[in-house]
Amino acid sequence: MTSTNSAAIVPSFLTGRWLTPDNPSKVTDVADPSTGEIVARVSAEGLDIAAAVDYARTVGRKNLQELTIHERSLKIKELAMFLQDHRDELNQLAHKTGANKRDNFVDVDGGISTMFTISSKGRREMPNSHVVTDGEPEVFSKDGSFIGRHIYTTIPGIAVQINAFNFPIWGMLEKFAPSFIAGVPSIVKPATPTGFVTQACVRLMLESGILPEGSLQLISGSARDLLDHLDFRDHVAFTGSAQTANALRSHTNVLEGGIQFSAEADSLNAAILGTDVTEDAPEFEAYTKAVFNEMTSKAGQKCTAIRRAIVPKGLVEPFIAALSQRLEAKVVPGDPRDENATMGPLVSLEQRDDVASAVHKLIDAGGEVVYGGADKLEGAFFAPTILRFDDAKAEAVHSTEAFGPVISVIGYDEPTDAVQLAAKGSGSLVASVITHDDELAALYGRGIAAYHGRVHFLDRVDAKTSTGHGSPLPHLVHGGPGRAGGGEELGGIRGILHYMQRTAIQGSPDHLTAVTGQWHRGAAVNRVTREDVINSTGVHPFRKDLATLKIGDQFASDLRKVTLEEILAFAKDTGDTFYAHTDEEAAMANPFFPRRVAHGYLLVSWAAGLFVEPAPGPVLANYGLENLRFIEPVTYDDSVRIELTAKRITPRVTDDYGEVCWDAALYNQDDVLVASYDVLTLVEKVDTIYAQK
Amino acid sequence: MTSTNSAAIVPSFLTGRWLTPDNPSKVTDVADPSTGEIVARVSAEGLDIAAAVDYARTVGRKNLQELTIHERSLKIKELAMFLQDHRDELNQLAHKTGANKRDNFVDVDGGISTMFTISSKGRREMPNSHVVTDGEPEVFSKDGSFIGRHIYTTIPGIAVQINAFNFPIWGMLEKFAPSFIAGVPSIVKPATPTGFVTQACVRLMLESGILPEGSLQLISGSARDLLDHLDFRDHVAFTGSAQTANALRSHTNVLEGGIQFSAEADSLNAAILGTDVTEDAPEFEAYTKAVFNEMTSKAGQKCTAIRRAIVPKGLVEPFIAALSQRLEAKVVPGDPRDENATMGPLVSLEQRDDVASAVHKLIDAGGEVVYGGADKLEGAFFAPTILRFDDAKAEAVHSTEAFGPVISVIGYDEPTDAVQLAAKGSGSLVASVITHDDELAALYGRGIAAYHGRVHFLDRVDAKTSTGHGSPLPHLVHGGPGRAGGGEELGGIRGILHYMQRTAIQGSPDHLTAVTGQWHRGAAVNRVTREDVINSTGVHPFRKDLATLKIGDQFASDLRKVTLEEILAFAKDTGDTFYAHTDEEAAMANPFFPRRVAHGYLLVSWAAGLFVEPAPGPVLANYGLENLRFIEPVTYDDSVRIELTAKRITPRVTDDYGEVCWDAALYNQDDVLVASYDVLTLVEKVDTIYAQK
Repeated sequence: MTSTNSAAIVPSFLTGRWLTPDNPSKVTDVADPSTGEIVARVSAEGLDIAAAVDYARTVGRKNLQELTIHERSLKIKELAMFLQDHRDELNQLAHKTGANKRDNFVDVDGGISTMFTISSKGRREMPNSHVVTDGEPEVFSKDGSFIGRHIYTTIPGIAVQINAFNFPIWGMLEKFAPSFIAGVPSIVKPATPTGFVTQACVRLMLESGILPEGSLQLISGSARDLLDHLDFRDHVAFTGSAQTANALRSHTNVLEGGIQFSAEADSLNAAILGTDVTEDAPEFEAYTKAVFNEMTSKAGQKCTAIRRAIVPKGLVEPFIAALSQRLEAKVVPGDPRDENATMGPLVSLEQRDDVASAVHKLIDAGGEVVYGGADKLEGAFFAPTILRFDDAKAEAVHSTEAFGPVISVIGYDEPTDAVQLAAKGSGSLVASVITHDDELAALYGRGIAAYHGRVHFLDRVDAKTSTGHGSPLPHLVHGGPGRAGGGEELGGIRGILHYMQRTAIQGSPDHLTAVTGQWHRGAAVNRVTREDVINSTGVHPFRKDLATLKIGDQFASDLRKVTLEEILAFAKDTGDTFYAHTDEEAAMANPFFPRRVAHGYLLVSWAAGLFVEPAPGPVLANYGLENLRFIEPVTYDDSVRIELTAKRITPRVTDDYGEVCWDAALYNQDDVLVASYDVLTLVEKVDTIYAQK
Repeated sequence: MTSTNSAAIVPSFLTGRWLTPDNPSKVTDVADPSTGEIVARVSAEGLDIAAAVDYARTVGRKNLQELTIHERSLKIKELAMFLQDHRDELNQLAHKTGANKRDNFVDVDGGISTMFTISSKGRREMPNSHVVTDGEPEVFSKDGSFIGRHIYTTIPGIAVQINAFNFPIWGMLEKFAPSFIAGVPSIVKPATPTGFVTQACVRLMLESGILPEGSLQLISGSARDLLDHLDFRDHVAFTGSAQTANALRSHTNVLEGGIQFSAEADSLNAAILGTDVTEDAPEFEAYTKAVFNEMTSKAGQKCTAIRRAIVPKGLVEPFIAALSQRLEAKVVPGDPRDENATMGPLVSLEQRDDVASAVHKLIDAGGEVVYGGADKLEGAFFAPTILRFDDAKAEAVHSTEAFGPVISVIGYDEPTDAVQLAAKGSGSLVASVITHDDELAALYGRGIAAYHGRVHFLDRVDAKTSTGHGSPLPHLVHGGPGRAGGGEELGGIRGILHYMQRTAIQGSPDHLTAVTGQWHRGAAVNRVTREDVINSTGVHPFRKDLATLKIGDQFASDLRKVTLEEILAFAKDTGDTFYAHTDEEAAMANPFFPRRVAHGYLLVSWAAGLFVEPAPGPVLANYGLENLRFIEPVTYDDSVRIELTAKRITPRVTDDYGEVCWDAALYNQDDVLVASYDVLTLVEKVDTIYAQK
């Protein structure tokens, strides 16, 4: 391998400027593992980390907090679109890390699509504000004057994201998108072997002009004192080896200073082939393909790759034969830029040595090499290797990770044995269960779930549509207990909430309304009655657009009397002739009804009739209902009235309208609450479509 | 103080037996702090902790997993009722720890009521099974064959609960109830000074005969090697000092072994008086009362007690005067058995010395004693003490905790200054904000939320109904970031879920249905049509009681055509004459509607008419709807049909019926999904009320 020092030192981006150290005493060369060419040099010596942390805490935080959750989400979408236009540049560069086209699809395209998904979820599933509510209010006092609920607000510090070498793009973006949407400024520290790819991506992100100043900084190189500058306000998300995770976790600022530390470590992920599967079943092929994919994608350098094939004893040999045949037929190792090559090299010679050493450890523990082997090396290329273990419980199988194209195959008898073997991994990111038997799926799945962050089921039904064992999806949590680091990332908005603090709040409805920005029952209202509307002494809230509507704006209807004739007519018209509405004797025998009662559907239909403002206005549509509960029966000769109050207003950043959620409380003539629900509407930002006179 | 050795060694309960060490080399005497009498002796020497852990892992786990979440919840309720009948016994014993009647109300009654609440929430808000779902399913493939969602299952290990001395009953029960309902066996380790009270409670719980064998064990005394026997499967919940929390967190089995460690440490809780408050406002009195209560309840020995009074500068002196006056008038220190005494002693002479030492530290940092003082000691009694600080930013105010009836008073100018001062506590369990101004409530509340586990708002509206600053409620999370330990307990079912592992599952609808026990759209159905019912070739699912109904049982209706006449009639009958249903031109101008459309309420009413089985049967009532979304407009001349599928079945453990949630999918004549919702019904366990022929 040749070494030249012509490559530039990868710059860092701190406190608003690109920086490289002057005359560093130690510089690490990074070589293209396919060619040996030095493609980057790395050193972070002398960078002022304390200043960078302070900059994030002040400038970054201030700028991010000026944006709402939806505004930040939209910026993530815009960034994703920008990166999509520049992915060729990133793909080309990533080839120099050994990544081929398929690998880049996972890393580059995967990172961008993660941004799209998280952005979309931030806008669809979170409020367009700064305070996120969690769960429903709890009422503690009989008179409703003292209530409680939970909120999430942005953690008061910064996010430090320490990434692994295998996904220089996805690894950064899957952490950055959620923390950015949560409103937390990030300092990104990629791994040395592929940090130059991350740096290129960060440069693009900064050049896009989309990011607020201070929201993203980059340390290219090792920064051993990084945690010295952090405290309980800050969140460190680490991806990498279990060993490094443990070292970071032992830092005094984590142990005593309260840094929020989350780790995602590689693990001994298992794939279980069900006892129902026969050699000629589609599941057998699906299983073989899954293991093959996980071995060869990124040359096995994935935290989520399958390391342990747990196979019914009778299928161990057929499986090894099928897998060997597939490897033989399909693996063409080669330079990732070579279109005929199907598997690239490991990222570096060091990594190759680590994998070889792990394979030797597995062999010493009883593993028999039945395909490939650690001695068949060419440069950083590692031959796909299958190890067969007669002793399924050999400790090394469940604890020694060869971070390359290596699989250990172990046999089992009963499904419960497979569950126990999978659990011996001491906590993994993901396991696959391949079976076409639902009961077996439940048995394996429930048995291993608590040992895993994700369980992937596969059979003939979804063999073609599955996104695969090894792919974390932005919608689902990524992480796992024990050996896998104990952390959790992604999972839709769960990943955003990891960067927010959950706090219980308790007080009067007015106080909770003020803090959350959502109206709570019992809080002040701006009440308008039907009479007010008729007399023009009040404006119906349905006549207000988002520019004028306020939470607490309330419409209160008159009472409407329910007659038996109307109940019977509704039964006839709708076809809902359930006995509780039509048969006096049977209704009285029912434990919940005094006699014939009005349909719940009649009540909500009438309620709409009571609160509606018929003429065109800013309220465009009622698109749904939530939390509808029929609390007390309403029988004939009762009367009902509705109070409809603007509860939550969510203007959409990209549309001319937004969502308004209305609290609907239906009372009877005695002011007893008989039904309660949320009415979901779309309301114009500015009343234009049917402009008011 | 006299010392006798007549008191017995407090027994431990391990592996099914009560045990005391034989001839221990070291025994700690515990004295009644009011009388000096030795009331208990403590040693856990020679107890076989490894055996206890193994016993919990095997016997305890097996027995708990044989029960469903509801069955476990019901046992917690039964236990609470049992303890309620025996609380006098516990109250009497607790007096020997210095706790008076008011203190016991918080500890004994508070513990029991926490059990009732958590039990009720377990049964009302969780499924009656072993797998809890989290969030809604995500559909990943266009054909719906590959979907994902999240589940919680019981962590695979045990719960170790290390409690503080101040709440020997509540401290145990607030941890035990959630872990028990989650299905995790517990080993409880109370603090030495009050462990004899916990022991008495554990003895009662065991004598009740309600607990499954192995679900509760007790270590009375110090067990320094406890963590040596635990690993990533286990959960340690610690309450106590920040110092001990840090020591435990540094154990190698936490750092490297992955023990799930949660700490709740005392903290420098603040109470902010708003700048809107004047001396004669009700909020001024409410504030003074709140601080008084927190100083004197449990003689200030509460993790949640107010330590820092943050007061507008102009009110510092009036507040000190008012608080001093109240202390002078109301505090009568004395033996907790003396009905005239209003405040008991600290738990021990050691604790008294610790508090005195902290007060001296505060004085050295600039605190001026304006009431009480550390030199006015009588035995374990500590005089209520007010310290005034001219320098609000003095470090010690925000970091030195005097765990007794001591308050530091600091002044501030602007609301943002108060926010910054509160934050200087570096993370607290709780803060109070006392203001009658909603905007100020929002400003303080949003500013400090992320530094706190709980924020308590108070004003004239809820001064009488508030449960108080210092009382964690079972419905709300208890814990806090940073100095407060970084943990989270309680919070309704959140507290139960802390003892469960969240796992993403992905696969076919059939597989996810099998694993979760809830039907997913796309999974197999047992379909019955209207024609089947008429021809008796199928049974309508509404005719099945819980003994026969299965998830996936489906009723499929015929199509029903929508006519304009019916839309207009519905508008007239209900009064819902919204233009989208009645005015063709205006409807066409609306961006979401093609022309006049059917009311959403008409559609769900018709749907009920299409799926209903009118005659009496096991379905007793439709008590609500969830997640209703109108997805596509339905206009006249369209037709609709409904597919109603049993999705989730929740038999109630204490009733003759249970809840059935039905998936409702409304399609038009082109099989386009036009509305989607969940129908909530109550269904008999056995069809009795209207027994079928």
